[in-house]
Amino acid sequence: MNTIAVDAMGGDSAPEEIVKGAIKAKNLGIDVILSGDKNLIEPFLNNTKIPIVHYPEVISMDENPARAIRSKKNSSIVGAMQLVKDKKASAVFSAGSTGASLVAAIAVLGKIKGVIRPAIASVLPSVNQDIVLLDSGASLDVKPKVLLQFAAMGSKFAEVIFDLPSPRIGLLNNGEEASKGRDLEKSTYKLLKSSKLNFIGNIEGKDFASDSADVFVTDGFTGNIVLKTMEGTAKLQQSMIKKSLKGNLFKPLLLPVNKALQPVRDRLDPDKTNGAYLLGVNGIVTIAHGASSSEAVMNSIIFSSKTVEKGFISKFAETISEI
Amino acid sequence: MNTIAVDAMGGDSAPEEIVKGAIKAKNLGIDVILSGDKNLIEPFLNNTKIPIVHYPEVISMDENPARAIRSKKNSSIVGAMQLVKDKKASAVFSAGSTGASLVAAIAVLGKIKGVIRPAIASVLPSVNQDIVLLDSGASLDVKPKVLLQFAAMGSKFAEVIFDLPSPRIGLLNNGEEASKGRDLEKSTYKLLKSSKLNFIGNIEGKDFASDSADVFVTDGFTGNIVLKTMEGTAKLQQSMIKKSLKGNLFKPLLLPVNKALQPVRDRLDPDKTNGAYLLGVNGIVTIAHGASSSEAVMNSIIFSSKTVEKGFISKFAETISEI
Repeated sequence: MNTIAVDAMGGDSAPEEIVKGAIKAKNLGIDVILSGDKNLIEPFLNNTKIPIVHYPEVISMDENPARAIRSKKNSSIVGAMQLVKDKKASAVFSAGSTGASLVAAIAVLGKIKGVIRPAIASVLPSVNQDIVLLDSGASLDVKPKVLLQFAAMGSKFAEVIFDLPSPRIGLLNNGEEASKGRDLEKSTYKLLKSSKLNFIGNIEGKDFASDSADVFVTDGFTGNIVLKTMEGTAKLQQSMIKKSLKGNLFKPLLLPVNKALQPVRDRLDPDKTNGAYLLGVNGIVTIAHGASSSEAVMNSIIFSSKTVEKGFISKFAETISEI
Repeated sequence: MNTIAVDAMGGDSAPEEIVKGAIKAKNLGIDVILSGDKNLIEPFLNNTKIPIVHYPEVISMDENPARAIRSKKNSSIVGAMQLVKDKKASAVFSAGSTGASLVAAIAVLGKIKGVIRPAIASVLPSVNQDIVLLDSGASLDVKPKVLLQFAAMGSKFAEVIFDLPSPRIGLLNNGEEASKGRDLEKSTYKLLKSSKLNFIGNIEGKDFASDSADVFVTDGFTGNIVLKTMEGTAKLQQSMIKKSLKGNLFKPLLLPVNKALQPVRDRLDPDKTNGAYLLGVNGIVTIAHGASSSEAVMNSIIFSSKTVEKGFISKFAETISEI
């Protein structure tokens, strides 16, 4: 069984873009189940046969996640988690509120034994291959022991998903020296140094361009700021480039140059990438940007399916018990 | 009197690049004094007449700043600060260790009355105009009251340096809503909301591309990570673009396209920009990237000189007493 439970109501253009993405994935041979309001989903299904579990409530982006999950037992995200809990699906995909996905996952699936705090692992493009940044927003304020667990979870993630035998782990810090950082980084450095992980030391934001680490470890506040700063900087540079090309290039050249730059824009566009993974809960949960297009939804569902095939969760549970 | 004291020994290619930059500034009519080892500086001066104060000790990038400033009373950075203290210069420029500049500034010049912690304000490019990010590395762990002061210092800085009557202040956070962030951001939000500053609310990393704020306020750890992530992301995208253009563009077009992109690379290159300002100390202190070229050194010296002309420090002192 390799079925992906899709939260049909989560996302800026839900359910339309989500259902369309699910149909695209279905047409590629992936089994999907939609969780959400039957009446709102069906009009977009046309003749495609995808099962729906009717969970009519929706949690919006600006609701308090903990309160919303407590009060809306019939929300689409809870329904998607329940499908995995009941072994009717192997993974959850949602483009809805990250906070709600996190709280729902903990409430319905539970944390993996030994995990102190879950983390969001974001897969990001780098020079030669993808890298993992975690935590990118699940746990804002953490202790050194929690960062050590994040490092172990990120290491296992990169090992299984990227097929790397010994992923290079870096601690995001404000300098390379062991003495750098807040008390959090100084203590975490020592824990990582004496762990069995392939810890390469402190790394900096500029190392996103240097291919020096596979896993970037930090707290959820810093990770979230980093993720969005990358998004902002990429867009800022693109708008500067647009202006500069217009001002400095012979006009007929603009079209081919813009076309040649499109792959880069796509690669750095969070709406088009494979999303992020919730690590530390008893199930595979993939979360995506609220603005995800049907294409991005399809890509995330494909990726979730591959993650299931790789036996990620069972390999993962061992990791935590080993720390 | 409008003389800039230049730390001739600070920087990866000091004293050569620094002295060359000072000569370029001098040739544009700016008075400079060099602080450092006379014997190492003179060979690069050729026939240019620039006064030198002999401070033979050098503080390297990897020394503990506090310990180094205590033990090396004759270091070039201390000498530069002393020139301002003795009213022989109006501002300090250094491309050496940021930590050493910070500690030397506090030790020799002292903090402005009322300032709890100094901050580093970095001037960064944005869509239509420059913006200020502070703190970008002076005070890693701070209290809400300190962030409020950073906001006030950043506001006055943008007002004087960018000629903005009422700079828009944003608090860097992991979401827009008032409820977002760690305890630090939640408490600071309230302080900013009830202050006289033009506080526009929480802003995110993606807002670096949105022209929504003039001043980005955060703690020194997060600010430093943001600064370097911007650097890393810009370089990553440039290397992706290079590859994509090579693969997708007719070869004779590469040269003109690369030329048209050069202004963007320059604008996002921290080695070529105007550096950063140490705010909250009794004097103008400009610090630059260790890898600064002589051109960057010259630009920073010009900028320091303009800052002196604008009467920055006297305007600044009022601000703090008003909070």
